[in-house]
Amino acid sequence: MKKIKIGVIGAGRIGKVHVATLMQSVPEADVIALSDINIISARELAQKFGIKTVTTDYQEIIQHPDVEAVVICSPTDTHTQYIIEAARAGKHIFCEKPVDLSLDLIKKAINAVFKAGVKFMVGFNRRFDPNFLKIKTMVEEGKIGKPHVLKITSRDPAPPPAEYSAVSGGMFLDMTIHDFDMARYIVGSEVVEVFTKAAVLVDPEIGKAGDVDTAIITLTFANGAIGVIDNSRKAVYGYDQRLEIFGSEGMINADNNYPETHRYYSKKGVTKSLPLNFFMERYTQSYVNEMITFCNLLRDKIQSVVSCDDGLKSVAIALAAKKSYLENRPVKLSEIKY
Amino acid sequence: MKKIKIGVIGAGRIGKVHVATLMQSVPEADVIALSDINIISARELAQKFGIKTVTTDYQEIIQHPDVEAVVICSPTDTHTQYIIEAARAGKHIFCEKPVDLSLDLIKKAINAVFKAGVKFMVGFNRRFDPNFLKIKTMVEEGKIGKPHVLKITSRDPAPPPAEYSAVSGGMFLDMTIHDFDMARYIVGSEVVEVFTKAAVLVDPEIGKAGDVDTAIITLTFANGAIGVIDNSRKAVYGYDQRLEIFGSEGMINADNNYPETHRYYSKKGVTKSLPLNFFMERYTQSYVNEMITFCNLLRDKIQSVVSCDDGLKSVAIALAAKKSYLENRPVKLSEIKY
Amino acid sequence: MKKIKIGVIGAGRIGKVHVATLMQSVPEADVIALSDINIISARELAQKFGIKTVTTDYQEIIQHPDVEAVVICSPTDTHTQYIIEAARAGKHIFCEKPVDLSLDLIKKAINAVFKAGVKFMVGFNRRFDPNFLKIKTMVEEGKIGKPHVLKITSRDPAPPPAEYSAVSGGMFLDMTIHDFDMARYIVGSEVVEVFTKAAVLVDPEIGKAGDVDTAIITLTFANGAIGVIDNSRKAVYGYDQRLEIFGSEGMINADNNYPETHRYYSKKGVTKSLPLNFFMERYTQSYVNEMITFCNLLRDKIQSVVSCDDGLKSVAIALAAKKSYLENRPVKLSEIKY
Amino acid sequence: MKKIKIGVIGAGRIGKVHVATLMQSVPEADVIALSDINIISARELAQKFGIKTVTTDYQEIIQHPDVEAVVICSPTDTHTQYIIEAARAGKHIFCEKPVDLSLDLIKKAINAVFKAGVKFMVGFNRRFDPNFLKIKTMVEEGKIGKPHVLKITSRDPAPPPAEYSAVSGGMFLDMTIHDFDMARYIVGSEVVEVFTKAAVLVDPEIGKAGDVDTAIITLTFANGAIGVIDNSRKAVYGYDQRLEIFGSEGMINADNNYPETHRYYSKKGVTKSLPLNFFMERYTQSYVNEMITFCNLLRDKIQSVVSCDDGLKSVAIALAAKKSYLENRPVKLSEIKY
Repeated sequence: MKKIKIGVIGAGRIGKVHVATLMQSVPEADVIALSDINIISARELAQKFGIKTVTTDYQEIIQHPDVEAVVICSPTDTHTQYIIEAARAGKHIFCEKPVDLSLDLIKKAINAVFKAGVKFMVGFNRRFDPNFLKIKTMVEEGKIGKPHVLKITSRDPAPPPAEYSAVSGGMFLDMTIHDFDMARYIVGSEVVEVFTKAAVLVDPEIGKAGDVDTAIITLTFANGAIGVIDNSRKAVYGYDQRLEIFGSEGMINADNNYPETHRYYSKKGVTKSLPLNFFMERYTQSYVNEMITFCNLLRDKIQSVVSCDDGLKSVAIALAAKKSYLENRPVKLSEIKY
Repeated sequence: MKKIKIGVIGAGRIGKVHVATLMQSVPEADVIALSDINIISARELAQKFGIKTVTTDYQEIIQHPDVEAVVICSPTDTHTQYIIEAARAGKHIFCEKPVDLSLDLIKKAINAVFKAGVKFMVGFNRRFDPNFLKIKTMVEEGKIGKPHVLKITSRDPAPPPAEYSAVSGGMFLDMTIHDFDMARYIVGSEVVEVFTKAAVLVDPEIGKAGDVDTAIITLTFANGAIGVIDNSRKAVYGYDQRLEIFGSEGMINADNNYPETHRYYSKKGVTKSLPLNFFMERYTQSYVNEMITFCNLLRDKIQSVVSCDDGLKSVAIALAAKKSYLENRPVKLSEIKY
Repeated sequence: MKKIKIGVIGAGRIGKVHVATLMQSVPEADVIALSDINIISARELAQKFGIKTVTTDYQEIIQHPDVEAVVICSPTDTHTQYIIEAARAGKHIFCEKPVDLSLDLIKKAINAVFKAGVKFMVGFNRRFDPNFLKIKTMVEEGKIGKPHVLKITSRDPAPPPAEYSAVSGGMFLDMTIHDFDMARYIVGSEVVEVFTKAAVLVDPEIGKAGDVDTAIITLTFANGAIGVIDNSRKAVYGYDQRLEIFGSEGMINADNNYPETHRYYSKKGVTKSLPLNFFMERYTQSYVNEMITFCNLLRDKIQSVVSCDDGLKSVAIALAAKKSYLENRPVKLSEIKY
Repeated sequence: MKKIKIGVIGAGRIGKVHVATLMQSVPEADVIALSDINIISARELAQKFGIKTVTTDYQEIIQHPDVEAVVICSPTDTHTQYIIEAARAGKHIFCEKPVDLSLDLIKKAINAVFKAGVKFMVGFNRRFDPNFLKIKTMVEEGKIGKPHVLKITSRDPAPPPAEYSAVSGGMFLDMTIHDFDMARYIVGSEVVEVFTKAAVLVDPEIGKAGDVDTAIITLTFANGAIGVIDNSRKAVYGYDQRLEIFGSEGMINADNNYPETHRYYSKKGVTKSLPLNFFMERYTQSYVNEMITFCNLLRDKIQSVVSCDDGLKSVAIALAAKKSYLENRPVKLSEIKY
């Protein structure tokens, strides 16, 4: 079997996940080049998995003659530039979410991808989580009939550092963006209006940095369905990732995942463990499925998945959500120009 | 033990529940008089429980010299008149929800109650449901810390007849009013703003009657917490009554109630029974607890419970929700004049 | 509706349950006479429910010209005598479990019942519990195919006083007898062999009184199925009543019942309430269903239910279980002579 | 990091699991040699993971100068010979369960291991399953107080071919042996007596081959606790692996594992997926933990785990269980000579 040669840009938290996944769980993939401005991180990761080319210069990855596809795990503000350069170099592209905070830049990147005719996938890993995959399949099979109400609960165990809020674009663009993508994916229809009620309840520092930490976001879909996302930056009991879809013929919901199944009965009550804490544990399988899917895309086994359009739409909804919060009124997606 | 002598006005669905509860499950209560414009219904119920006075004339109940308290179970548009007359007659009053669809009339009734110095309780039975009582207690004990996000799911098994929608005031005043009361009760703070996104997804006839059948309603509370209620007039799997409260120190949620606990494992999957279907089964215990509480109020064992103000506020929120839906914008409670 | 006139013998714990159930939840039943050697208990209960005849003499109940049926709730060692006298007086009979500790006496009582042609029912209330009724129905519908393995877990919250062990006949005749009846009922086949492994692990005093407090009992059924009952006299987390039946086409199990459905998520874990504690709460509905069934039997709506034979067989299995424990070997039911 | 060089004997079902685990999930392990009498299987597996030495001759593995430890995954009847040879060659040893069907041969193997002073571990992978690890830890922490009753349910999705029953030693030695080991592990005390009630209910062919397919096995432990294992060779709903331990201060139980967490509510009921079907999916994590533990043993990070004695005791209990079944009487472990 000839392996797919992949170059990875970024050896940070998510870069490490993708490298390990590709090398351990995707037999047809081979990471042959890795870059990070922090050469120590890059070398450490490269050594662990026997990656030959290690560099601080992302262009070495993009221009590497053997690299067929690049996996972009660098900070958000570098994404569109790397996409454009990789597309011009004829490389297929996997890019972490969000593609960018600017719709204009995303459009430029998309244009470059279309022009070059390379394959492109955005890293909305949660689509590949077994719980949500199952629900998506059942919705498509008509198990709930016509969708009426979508509900997503998405809470983090703890807020990121306040300085991160600034560069990340804030909660809607950094955290809720996953939920916006999930909403479109599960309902199978576009969001046409957003109303956001948000607050700073977890930490005043987040408010000082111009961000919020708690929100309830109402979505209206083109097919008539309505939906709601509730977010918090801090659930003391850990990572809370649940989803429910209700329709004319039934309802499906997905609970959290737990490290084990025990129940403990004592004088004080019946107790079980807390949910798996944070995305590395909770979404492990989704990262594997995501990279397998990316390789299937590269191998023409599937035609399209998590497209440019998905990357664009999720950011547009996030911007509408932010605008709705700031102006305290429902915002139509048609107001977000791009 | 000297029993509390009670007169009941209305022998319909909810009247039957209260009579049976008082006679079977509240040892200190004695229903001695019953009225209904349908004398056949009244007689049948009276005979079953040995109630001596049976009449078509509600005034016989209110003016009955032995009656200490009246339980008003007649149609909504008769409530305020009966309250006023009962108060003037010096009778204590239990009135079904909603007190009225008009805030002005509710205020007149409240004034009569205050003037007469009689005791008054509104029939928000769900407050007395074991699930919600438990959560209320835990919230008050500080188990979740400061409340951040409230979530209520409230779905009926099937819509009422379209003609009922007209007289009931519509979904917000008839169905969601329970959830509005529950929201104030659990969070322990007043609602200051409402945003409603609603739709007709279940049955176009409901839309023709000027009502909606599906809604997501965002609430903002005076204490900074936010909340969301989702409603549907038709869940094919039955009556769906869940609640979740999330705060700085934890989260509590309540699932539905089920007729039994079995799980069936076959080749096809693992199956359990549907939830208890509709309020007579689901909220049986709440009706018992409610009437015990009313009698405790009458016996001065407790000072106040589900007050005039609760009756007024829930209607005000319902009117704000309706206005928000019609104008597609968040509506402040201060806009609702009364 | 002409009511069924019933006399109750015994105003103790279970007598109170049956009187309240008959008077509050079985509209066609009327308890008109009540006896207890403790006249204060009897009067108190009679007054509460308006029972006219109150006496210390059980014969007044049995000989009362208006009494159609007697409900025997007196101590076990009086059962057979009262059955025989009631049968001779032509009264229908409901008798609490166990009918007696002696198979010979039970047979004498049965003979009297047959001779008199009166109706007879033994108080195995658990058969009427919604959980177990549901499982029984599903087994009869063939949902699990051919039964292979039955499992019953039955644990009390706390042992009875040591002196009670002596008069009750010990754990197998007092507590496990319910499980033996349930085993026959659910599997739908007779027990042909028993092996008991038992121990004194809860309280040495129980051992000194000649009884055990913990047991695992293996059952072999005539239809080839096998089963196991595990008992403990003390579960610190409360009353534990679960059942599982496994067959060629599936498995069904029933969990405990809980007072409410909340889950509490804090830093420490996810917690829910303990199960309903003890039989008065846990089996409330079964007592109602049981008395409704008894009245249906009296009204000829059903032909037979929990028969003389059921009363006899459960005691025979209990005696076999005890013999097996004492001799540490499997005991065939055919070894128990009657 | 210098890797641990490992040789694997046997490239069948379980050999494949261990090779993949060692190469993908245990960074400090390196499988450098692999043998199987089926050279095609061996080559395929070796190629996939880049294993250099591939052979049909197990002695090449054992005598390989670079191999530090051997992992024995060949048929049961070869185990003791390979153990003895590997021990003499100074290699550390991991051996699949059961070590052998003959207690005498196991003892010879153990003697060779002791004489050589090499490390030895038996493949009772379930000890390393997160569910059972959690329970073991909690029992050791005293969470349930003194253990009173252990319950293990262990059912396979489908019986092995009838011819397998013959070579495997039958259900007790092939399948229940896992449960016997688990029983000793969780209770932390030796089994002193066994009573087996078994039957052929799944397939008469199994009976013709001299084996059983359904069993309830009562265990008595040295510390006074009692336990029960129920087995079936065929659960139509899949692999059923549950455990419960009840003691003076509480109870802990572990449910099965499921592929995802969704619940589907339709008109017909509430449904979830079947449990993970069969050991490769259900016990994936246990195999990883097991090999990490083996490498920790080799690296002297831990002193002992799943010892020679564990290998011996589990077979002795299985033989006692078989004897009990054949003679229909409780069998003391002291009757099993070795």
